[in-house]
Amino acid sequence: MPLSSIFLFKDLSESRLKRITDTVKETRAEKGRWLFHEGSSADRIYALRSGAVELLTRVNDDIELPVTIIRKVGGCFGLSAMVHPYQYSLSARCAEDAALLEFGRKDIEKMIQEDYEMGCIIMNNLAQYLLERLKESRQDLKIHFKTLFRSMHT
Amino acid sequence: MPLSSIFLFKDLSESRLKRITDTVKETRAEKGRWLFHEGSSADRIYALRSGAVELLTRVNDDIELPVTIIRKVGGCFGLSAMVHPYQYSLSARCAEDAALLEFGRKDIEKMIQEDYEMGCIIMNNLAQYLLERLKESRQDLKIHFKTLFRSMHT
Repeated sequence: MPLSSIFLFKDLSESRLKRITDTVKETRAEKGRWLFHEGSSADRIYALRSGAVELLTRVNDDIELPVTIIRKVGGCFGLSAMVHPYQYSLSARCAEDAALLEFGRKDIEKMIQEDYEMGCIIMNNLAQYLLERLKESRQDLKIHFKTLFRSMHT
Repeated sequence: MPLSSIFLFKDLSESRLKRITDTVKETRAEKGRWLFHEGSSADRIYALRSGAVELLTRVNDDIELPVTIIRKVGGCFGLSAMVHPYQYSLSARCAEDAALLEFGRKDIEKMIQEDYEMGCIIMNNLAQYLLERLKESRQDLKIHFKTLFRSMHT
């Protein structure tokens, strides 16, 4: 999988992608394994090479609420590692056996400090991603609102 | 109002803030006036100097769904102007007579291209802001989910 297929790294030159490749760690995790939990310290970003990872949150400590499943090769998650206060905002669990790429927060921060133009490209990609997720989440709220509105008027 | 009190510009040096100040436009808008509509081309960011601005979306074209009201001095909105494809994701209307600061997208882009370190700081602030809004939106979804869950089990 070329790193340029990961949205966070799109629009980066070959030499910059090479620098990231030098820091990446390839890992595997079996179905059911937790990669991280909501609220815990976010020290790495993940990209999917194969398999599937579900992102979820908890309601009232006892109900799991699925947010999304990452199945697309190059799909990226754990992005709270890019943003202060560096705490995962969701939990991640392998929905299938998965092969992953791991990018350390410190490595990325170091690369950005050494090359701010690269930093701007990455942070731009991140902002674009977060805005998309925000729009989706608001869209979900609209659907809930419509359901509620209908139930009040029938 | 010092520009450093606008979250988007936090952690910028005095000289960088000065550069932004040189491009800013001060405007006023009366209660009820639309500043922009959802889906329209996003060419400027706004910060509130006084008054109040509500951000809202439409459900089924006929129902307005309020998302938030900006009342805090320095409160910033229209941030889709910072992110490709540069389309406002919500509509903005003055809830009270308002005094505003306007920052042109082209001006900010130019400053970033001339000073990528400054760009990284701004884009970092933006990502932090978007992640906070995303968490809030997911929190709202949890509340809707709980309501739905209760209504199914009573």
